[in-house]
Amino acid sequence: MLRALDQTLLPDHEVELELRDGAAVVEAIRRLAIRGAPLIGVAGAYGLALEVAAEPTAEHARLAAERLRSARPTAVNLSYAVDRVLQAALSAAPGELAGASLAEAQRVHQDELAASEAIARHGADFLGRDVGRVMTHCNTGALAAPGRGTALAVVAEMHDRGWLQEVLATESRPLLQGARLTVWELSRMEIPHELIVDSAAAGLLAGGAAQAMIVGCDRVAANGDVANKVGTYMLALAAGAAGIPFVVAGPTSTVDLDCPSGSSIVIEERDPDEVRAIAGRPITLAGTRTRNPAFDITPAQLVTALVTEKGVVSPVDGTAIRTLLSGVL
Amino acid sequence: MLRALDQTLLPDHEVELELRDGAAVVEAIRRLAIRGAPLIGVAGAYGLALEVAAEPTAEHARLAAERLRSARPTAVNLSYAVDRVLQAALSAAPGELAGASLAEAQRVHQDELAASEAIARHGADFLGRDVGRVMTHCNTGALAAPGRGTALAVVAEMHDRGWLQEVLATESRPLLQGARLTVWELSRMEIPHELIVDSAAAGLLAGGAAQAMIVGCDRVAANGDVANKVGTYMLALAAGAAGIPFVVAGPTSTVDLDCPSGSSIVIEERDPDEVRAIAGRPITLAGTRTRNPAFDITPAQLVTALVTEKGVVSPVDGTAIRTLLSGVL
Repeated sequence: MLRALDQTLLPDHEVELELRDGAAVVEAIRRLAIRGAPLIGVAGAYGLALEVAAEPTAEHARLAAERLRSARPTAVNLSYAVDRVLQAALSAAPGELAGASLAEAQRVHQDELAASEAIARHGADFLGRDVGRVMTHCNTGALAAPGRGTALAVVAEMHDRGWLQEVLATESRPLLQGARLTVWELSRMEIPHELIVDSAAAGLLAGGAAQAMIVGCDRVAANGDVANKVGTYMLALAAGAAGIPFVVAGPTSTVDLDCPSGSSIVIEERDPDEVRAIAGRPITLAGTRTRNPAFDITPAQLVTALVTEKGVVSPVDGTAIRTLLSGVL
Repeated sequence: MLRALDQTLLPDHEVELELRDGAAVVEAIRRLAIRGAPLIGVAGAYGLALEVAAEPTAEHARLAAERLRSARPTAVNLSYAVDRVLQAALSAAPGELAGASLAEAQRVHQDELAASEAIARHGADFLGRDVGRVMTHCNTGALAAPGRGTALAVVAEMHDRGWLQEVLATESRPLLQGARLTVWELSRMEIPHELIVDSAAAGLLAGGAAQAMIVGCDRVAANGDVANKVGTYMLALAAGAAGIPFVVAGPTSTVDLDCPSGSSIVIEERDPDEVRAIAGRPITLAGTRTRNPAFDITPAQLVTALVTEKGVVSPVDGTAIRTLLSGVL
């Protein structure tokens, strides 16, 4: 059984989900009870291990893997982690599929934990002690990834080093992960913070409100283009206009070399009611049509640095990405 | 008595306010029951006329004008319109202060009505028949200005000319004027539209979702910098990156020659609860600190054109603004 906080109920209620099979994991990922690219990957890995434990055949493992991969199309970590467990199952000796799957899911989990800590250190080293105020988007903390998260792990590390004065957190409409989750995490870590509406970011940055922007990523293409939570691209434009670094943090499991550039990334279009209502209360006329892309693409040239567990590349382009993945930084 | 729709209750309820004195007008402007730079100006003008009718002395007119001007600091139309009525009162013969004030308030109103129609024509002429999809921000229609409004008047005119396929409307957090008011107005005008969260704009524009952006303005500085609803600057950056025109529409009463550039414009910081709650429902931890600027500044060089009742200037700079106000375009 897999236990996870139901993130849709935060910060009002802390309810732990008990997920007993792959279908429950898929449903939790689809409705964003479990979210954040690295955490989705780990949940998918355990979800497949649960399925293989229940029916330890190669055929079922393949079928269950396919269903889990489809839970969210944009986060490549999900395919990556599910494929690792699937390969472990398919390579296992007869009678050992379940054990091999669970062991590989645990390795995926451990790898992401270690990645989070390395990202925190590399990111803080890169930004340095003179960055006292940072802005961040969506939620990239312990709720989004094992350990302390990705971008928010860097923020936490900077706080631990005594460098940080304040974090500006965007609310991150439509589902308010910033207002609901990031504020909750920053409060628990006792890191000073202020909440803003998404569209206030550009004007505040122009006025010097932060010395760096740091965000996570849902998929990084081979040329360095970044798919991340809707609004990220606008923040990259705003950071560029303000002359401050725009830093993307994530594990290398987020890099998809099969994806040549951002234009090949499928952008998930979500339910119109996410736009038409907030926390269940309608904010516009019933039946209003919407466009509700969950992600957008930030071109590599707007990304000052990509911070991963293997180190930092800056500037970000295809050559840097290949160097990063080869591990020879 | 001044009658006006209470815009805080739209689109759920259509309630008409009956404002009997200047204090009621100030209160309605402060709580955004009356909003939109040109409409605030007209309301302020009638508010002063009501005060002078009740107590027709120069001393009271000056005092009431001062109170009305302070209702919102950013919209220059308010000072402009109140000052016109005050000058009419101060120039009137003894015993004629009330009549002169009301007559001037009515002239302010008529001037803004005529301005709205001229803006609609000039804006549509400038954008042309090849612009089928436009994006707009906040609310700039008949609820924001006498007549058909400013930016939304241009949209309505393009619709009347049969050019428009669709309008993309940003929801405009924190107070959701786009979701509540613009969608309501577009529905009544039967103009096809889709609603988006503010931060989806940049990615959608990069994908070709609109061929032009058109917004209103709360104040235009002498060098052409534009103060408008928070989020406007980010939209200007996004339009520039997408290579589409970023057009600002407003009456020349919005231009403030006493303000040399955007950096001299006071940005109103509003109640934290506008960010911490939506429609009265908390969306984050209680007591969370916020930054809540009501406006931001878009530098003149990002503005493709300024559309006014006196015509269109493009590009926008100090020389263009002076030419515009001289009336010799």
